[in-house]
Amino acid sequence: MSKLRCDISISLDGCVAGPNQSVENPLGEGGERLHDWVVQLAAWRQAHGLEGGEVNESARIVEESRENIGAGVMGRNMFGPVGGGPWGDEQWTGWWGDDPPYHYPVFVLTHHPRDPVEMQGGTTFHFVTDGIESALEQARDAAGGKDVMLWGGAQAVNQYLAAGFLNVLELHVVPVLLGDGARFFDNLGDAEVQLEQVRAVEAPGVTHLKYRVVT
Amino acid sequence: MSKLRCDISISLDGCVAGPNQSVENPLGEGGERLHDWVVQLAAWRQAHGLEGGEVNESARIVEESRENIGAGVMGRNMFGPVGGGPWGDEQWTGWWGDDPPYHYPVFVLTHHPRDPVEMQGGTTFHFVTDGIESALEQARDAAGGKDVMLWGGAQAVNQYLAAGFLNVLELHVVPVLLGDGARFFDNLGDAEVQLEQVRAVEAPGVTHLKYRVVT
Repeated sequence: MSKLRCDISISLDGCVAGPNQSVENPLGEGGERLHDWVVQLAAWRQAHGLEGGEVNESARIVEESRENIGAGVMGRNMFGPVGGGPWGDEQWTGWWGDDPPYHYPVFVLTHHPRDPVEMQGGTTFHFVTDGIESALEQARDAAGGKDVMLWGGAQAVNQYLAAGFLNVLELHVVPVLLGDGARFFDNLGDAEVQLEQVRAVEAPGVTHLKYRVVT
Repeated sequence: MSKLRCDISISLDGCVAGPNQSVENPLGEGGERLHDWVVQLAAWRQAHGLEGGEVNESARIVEESRENIGAGVMGRNMFGPVGGGPWGDEQWTGWWGDDPPYHYPVFVLTHHPRDPVEMQGGTTFHFVTDGIESALEQARDAAGGKDVMLWGGAQAVNQYLAAGFLNVLELHVVPVLLGDGARFFDNLGDAEVQLEQVRAVEAPGVTHLKYRVVT
């Protein structure tokens, strides 16, 4: 069956973004350090039209994480600006440039309706106003049997975890402490989330921890 | 130079004990699951006078963590009961039985003076009332050139981290979520703690992540 997977960089103190996220600083203070391990990879640079870069154990993990994904889901703040009006400028098409790195339909959780936006390279952003379950259903339909990737942020993932919808979680644990940032595994309420360790892979400056959510 | 090392089991959501710690339940709700990986090891069972048990990658980690330790430091709650008077019954010698598993001097952080207590097997508990730096100095003197092990709990480790005294941190990351427990890496204030990943070791039901604190 099509799985809901999440694959996210996290600080050793459990944050997926630093404190004081803003339009100017969407990853929060120090948050860019969460991605140091990935942006130096040849695989990442190639996907973003850049040359050079490193090849190490992380490359295999990144490659694997891209396999068999047919659609994505993300929270509102991961799509676009945190401040401003509901969509700021109506033309705003998110952080991701004209050719976003997804190349499949992405369903954005929001309270503000908006028509879908078709980008270059196969990414279409759909805006879902009727909740996480609806977004997941729509993404599953769009994925045509492949898996759905839950891109974050913390709030969206925590909601899917608490609701029992997440199947696979891969954490890229980075040796930084972000203090007061966007905390993962927060507000799970009384949800009994059972995890099973699938594997751990050591790589330069990061450890990749993969878990299966037991349902 | 003699290092201050800490070696602790932690939930995936960053807790080293579950919520609602008490005299009856010192590890808090669900906290005993943090130690499932270790109590099943033959190495652990042997150290506690039991037979049988498993041999896996974790055995090597546990063995390594015991090497070259000459003294220990622990917080008050890790020594003895959370409730009751300062020492409850004056005879109370902690959670650890007549022959505690340390076999070296252990310095307990407390606000309540008490004479040292000599146990069987080489463990002597010393009670330090003048702060974490004093406890560390006394432990270093007692360790005779060997390293000092910081046994926890969360509050004590966070204080040593924030003060820049910790040198090596090994986290045994267990795939459980404890929610509201004793949070690690908390209350570090403005301390700039820089960590460097030393290694990651996958083992059944746990991943061992070792870091060097950069000073």
